[in-house]
Amino acid sequence: MTAASTSIADALFRPRSIALVGASGDENKHASLPHQYLRRHGYGGEIFPINANRDSVFGERAFKSVFQVGKPVDHAFIMLPTDAVLGAVSDCCKAGVRCATILSNGFAESGEEGRRRQADLLGMARTSGLRLLGPNSLGIINLPDHVALSANEILSLPELRPGRYSLISQSGSLIGAVLSRGQARGIGFAKMISVGNEADLGVAEMGGMLVDDPGTDAILLFLETVRNADGLAAMARSAFAAGKPVIAFRVGRSEVGEQLAATHTGAMVGSGAAMDAFLSDIGIVRVETMDAFLEVAPLVQGHRPPGGRRVSVVSTTGGGGTLVIDAIERHDIEIVPPSEAAVERLAAQGIAIARTPLIDLTLAGTNPRTYGAVLRELMAAPDCDLVMSVVGSSSQFRPDRAVLPITAATRENPGKPVGVFLTPHAETSLGLLSEAGLAAFRTPESCADALRAFFDWRAPRAEEPHPVPRAAAAALAATEDPLDAGAAARVFERLGVPVAAERVLPADMGAIEAEALDDLAYPVVAKILSPDIAHKTEVGGVVIGCPTPAALKAACRRILASVAEAAPQARLAGIQVQPMLEGIGEALLGYHRDPSVGPVVTLGVGGVLAEIYRDVCVRRAPVDEAAARGMIDAVRGLAPLRGYRGLQKGDLDALAQCIAAFSRLALLDVEEAEINPVLIRPEGQGVVALDTLLVKGGPHAS
Amino acid sequence: MTAASTSIADALFRPRSIALVGASGDENKHASLPHQYLRRHGYGGEIFPINANRDSVFGERAFKSVFQVGKPVDHAFIMLPTDAVLGAVSDCCKAGVRCATILSNGFAESGEEGRRRQADLLGMARTSGLRLLGPNSLGIINLPDHVALSANEILSLPELRPGRYSLISQSGSLIGAVLSRGQARGIGFAKMISVGNEADLGVAEMGGMLVDDPGTDAILLFLETVRNADGLAAMARSAFAAGKPVIAFRVGRSEVGEQLAATHTGAMVGSGAAMDAFLSDIGIVRVETMDAFLEVAPLVQGHRPPGGRRVSVVSTTGGGGTLVIDAIERHDIEIVPPSEAAVERLAAQGIAIARTPLIDLTLAGTNPRTYGAVLRELMAAPDCDLVMSVVGSSSQFRPDRAVLPITAATRENPGKPVGVFLTPHAETSLGLLSEAGLAAFRTPESCADALRAFFDWRAPRAEEPHPVPRAAAAALAATEDPLDAGAAARVFERLGVPVAAERVLPADMGAIEAEALDDLAYPVVAKILSPDIAHKTEVGGVVIGCPTPAALKAACRRILASVAEAAPQARLAGIQVQPMLEGIGEALLGYHRDPSVGPVVTLGVGGVLAEIYRDVCVRRAPVDEAAARGMIDAVRGLAPLRGYRGLQKGDLDALAQCIAAFSRLALLDVEEAEINPVLIRPEGQGVVALDTLLVKGGPHAS
Repeated sequence: MTAASTSIADALFRPRSIALVGASGDENKHASLPHQYLRRHGYGGEIFPINANRDSVFGERAFKSVFQVGKPVDHAFIMLPTDAVLGAVSDCCKAGVRCATILSNGFAESGEEGRRRQADLLGMARTSGLRLLGPNSLGIINLPDHVALSANEILSLPELRPGRYSLISQSGSLIGAVLSRGQARGIGFAKMISVGNEADLGVAEMGGMLVDDPGTDAILLFLETVRNADGLAAMARSAFAAGKPVIAFRVGRSEVGEQLAATHTGAMVGSGAAMDAFLSDIGIVRVETMDAFLEVAPLVQGHRPPGGRRVSVVSTTGGGGTLVIDAIERHDIEIVPPSEAAVERLAAQGIAIARTPLIDLTLAGTNPRTYGAVLRELMAAPDCDLVMSVVGSSSQFRPDRAVLPITAATRENPGKPVGVFLTPHAETSLGLLSEAGLAAFRTPESCADALRAFFDWRAPRAEEPHPVPRAAAAALAATEDPLDAGAAARVFERLGVPVAAERVLPADMGAIEAEALDDLAYPVVAKILSPDIAHKTEVGGVVIGCPTPAALKAACRRILASVAEAAPQARLAGIQVQPMLEGIGEALLGYHRDPSVGPVVTLGVGGVLAEIYRDVCVRRAPVDEAAARGMIDAVRGLAPLRGYRGLQKGDLDALAQCIAAFSRLALLDVEEAEINPVLIRPEGQGVVALDTLLVKGGPHAS
Repeated sequence: MTAASTSIADALFRPRSIALVGASGDENKHASLPHQYLRRHGYGGEIFPINANRDSVFGERAFKSVFQVGKPVDHAFIMLPTDAVLGAVSDCCKAGVRCATILSNGFAESGEEGRRRQADLLGMARTSGLRLLGPNSLGIINLPDHVALSANEILSLPELRPGRYSLISQSGSLIGAVLSRGQARGIGFAKMISVGNEADLGVAEMGGMLVDDPGTDAILLFLETVRNADGLAAMARSAFAAGKPVIAFRVGRSEVGEQLAATHTGAMVGSGAAMDAFLSDIGIVRVETMDAFLEVAPLVQGHRPPGGRRVSVVSTTGGGGTLVIDAIERHDIEIVPPSEAAVERLAAQGIAIARTPLIDLTLAGTNPRTYGAVLRELMAAPDCDLVMSVVGSSSQFRPDRAVLPITAATRENPGKPVGVFLTPHAETSLGLLSEAGLAAFRTPESCADALRAFFDWRAPRAEEPHPVPRAAAAALAATEDPLDAGAAARVFERLGVPVAAERVLPADMGAIEAEALDDLAYPVVAKILSPDIAHKTEVGGVVIGCPTPAALKAACRRILASVAEAAPQARLAGIQVQPMLEGIGEALLGYHRDPSVGPVVTLGVGGVLAEIYRDVCVRRAPVDEAAARGMIDAVRGLAPLRGYRGLQKGDLDALAQCIAAFSRLALLDVEEAEINPVLIRPEGQGVVALDTLLVKGGPHAS
């Protein structure tokens, strides 16, 4: 009577028997849907409706409980009110059910009591070996094998088109949107999984099953959050190794992602940007539009991350080609004209094309010979990374004629990704292209998003062991919490971050007056030191350009007076005096532990510009110098320091070293940190951290 | 035998007779298409095939020329080789044909000879009163009246769905994309016009006919350029007055629009940004996605430009609602929760909703009563400008149930625009919503683009007469061309632009050494003056912070030496010496005459940031102080000067006055000009132009 010998993947995706716990025979009730859908879509195994109050459901025999079934149950689908779920799961455990999908809600998503309830559920399941999907899962669908075990209303569709993409979604309802939209344009699916609260089986483990699934070519993820970063990273690596694209569309971007906090850089980057950085780091392809989510896979599948961002565009319609170029040029993608050699070879075949970014074949070139010859040249060209083909009205009325030359030419040169945009409403042609394994785009905008996602795609970043920086750890351990900037500076120095020379004066005017102060390198800047003051300038805590000891003393007087007025409660640790250093630019560095993906480092330009333009680069920490250099290149506002317009270059090697050193905070007991600004001096002259902040804590804290 | 009594609109859209000049009976030939399409789509008038070599075409009698027809011809459609077009047009003139659409190409689009050919064509037509559409026009379609006079392959569709939107396109082929995509989702069209080269009838005049057309509710424009800015402005104003939305989608944005020129600000803004500024100024709604082009009209139609950017979002699916919020929040649109009063009124009806940005009714609220009650509250709420309604899977299977509560609730409160996003593939529901006059969106991204376009929509800017600034005109007339910065500064002063005090030293070290220079307000800055040097810093032409006369002389020596090396050919007008002025920010101002839309003024932050972030605001010049203030608010990088994060505010009133004064360059004989930077001082302390450039010329030049 036990189903334990079945593999968990089989029990989930191909159960020989299903118990519908809480099944209803009332067609208007939600709990009647899985039964109806299983039957409608041809489930071939046994269904056991479980309902304490009925003898039959839809004319089939119903059971009081899973015990009464008397046969092995591979998969239980639980649709009971919250309070009854624990009992049902307990029954499943005792009856040797292999896995249970829990539709019911009222668990971790609903507050403290729900979290406790979910912990009880999980504890019970772990003890007995029952695996759980959910709670709060809308179910699981295996299209090729006719298992529609879900309450998702989209299953009202008369037929489900099987295919080779699988979807894992943290939003149950959006599975319907993907299935419905894919189906309408010839894109079918293999498995679709609503993971709900991920109490037990989550995105990472389900993804692992799909990596192993011979029916799955690409794994699509609808993500709201990351609950198991290490597991997801491992899954993404194995998918990459297996040549299966993993494509993520993140929902809830605005609410969780882009909020800019008021206090400091560490928190300036919400978990959205941290998640994006994490997903990119582990080799996942990130799209930002619904259409591209369905369309991008063929660009990735069978290909490696591209070396450049160069696209050739060939079109039978000038207008359509221009639409595509308009859209993709927004993403710093280069449109490359055909090479002189290619133009000559085509001319020898009697085909005249110009060396323009848009290769416009016009109506006259809308024939398989011309189109095919041009495409073959572009597919073979070493100086472009992707070929975009645009087809006009003919694609609506003569699908074969529009599609055949493309599929033929690409079959000969499968090494380069190809995208196709059709200007009219041409679902049939879109379907034919998808079936031929080509990326077919419905709009210029989704085409642009998919190309951007492809060009941003990188191999998973190698995970190297990072030794704990002992000197910095010791310096940190010797500090009190909260740290003032002086103590923070000592930790940074030990990590290898160059920190400005300084002298700290007591926060006491009498003591300051008593000092000579004539051994400093004037002019100097004076700044208040306080663990309670994050923005020193806002409380009058900074005076720059003090040329003499007398001027410095006057500055200290002003600082203490205005801080006393503006922040009377603040504990004062002293006044920090540094030489006035001149740089040719400023950057800010932030570090924090993101609750979902762990430690991240953030680089932006100095001042408020990083915030105003949301121009920052986020990476999982620690980073090495090469990755740090990549971060520098990704911040647009640092262009002047990269030599933009012949401006003097900054010492970006030193900045990269500084970023890498700073990012090793991830190996210490640090919750968040900031350097604002890092002063950047001309090439060869280094960088220096001017103002630092550090908050102890995090998982390493003792 | 003359058709001259017919109105031109009737002859174009509803011709009683059509001559197909160059008609072919060979179905594989392009010139056979209009005949086939006219018949297929039920044209009720007379068709006269004109072909010198045939007696019949498709079994109908053919004529040697329009003369031979012997009956009035309202509309000739000319499909001849380029060389034969002039003769055919001459025949049309003589035969009293009312208008001719010319499909043939080889005219102004093809170079100098083509331009001459087009001028000949136009001269001939003007003399006789024949009106021309094209050349290089794909034709004209009047769907409700069954006139498919076009060679557009999209007319292979078995049926054309009539509707109340009309389209004017400078790209002929994209008409097919719009027609096909609209048709597939229940959006029909009234008139569709390919204007081609606009030799005679252009976008403005055709648009005017559509403003007068009772069958047209909204005018869609596919624009590549603006050929008649004044005409387009007049058309847009009359459409606004008539309550007909004019919606523009600009193609060729990347190539003509976003190129950043290397020399100076005037040219930094390509004609694309100038066109966008112009279109917004005249009250046209601008979209940036294909889908929104079809979808946005109902948001505008029957409404006025909105006061705020506040949206309420109600959804039956949390995931779908989140998708929409994610997308629209990117455009600085505020999502407002329901008011406390609204929540209370709903509670009194037994409907519990939370005061959250997304009003998630969940599956339980997917019934007409709940949905309708919530929608009615939002429609009536004074604190939101637009209501977004999101419907899940039910919209695919139960169109009526999903759509009816929305149409019912909105019919009661027609004053507020409503948008609807459907998560699944639900073309039937999209069509029902369109028919009910609601904006229905296919993707979250097109929804966001349409909402942005709606919230950016403004009433046409009032055109006020601007008197020529006489003093400035006189100062300009007294200068030589090219002007150096000193001469430019005098013109700016007369316009009312505050310019830094200065002294100009001769570009001769001997003469400089002979001067005492002790009457200047030290520290000073020294800059080379030369009509040949645009970027002074790049040739070592600027030294800042000279504290004494001796330091100033040393600086002059350095400047002259390095300019002699870096720009040996440059004519030197002297060395400009100004006091070192301190501001709290910098802006740059540019002015140029755009070839299509005329004089424009550009505002950005100082330095290279405006370029790096493409963060500039462009308006047609001149602007008044209120419009200038709007420009300041539109530049993100000026946020610190607006008091962002409690930073010290700049004197933005003075900056607005300066922009308005600068923009009056449009009334002078000036081709382009720049102030880089305008130094911005704290509130009440004014602004000052530090470095100026001015190039005479333009249409006003003598």
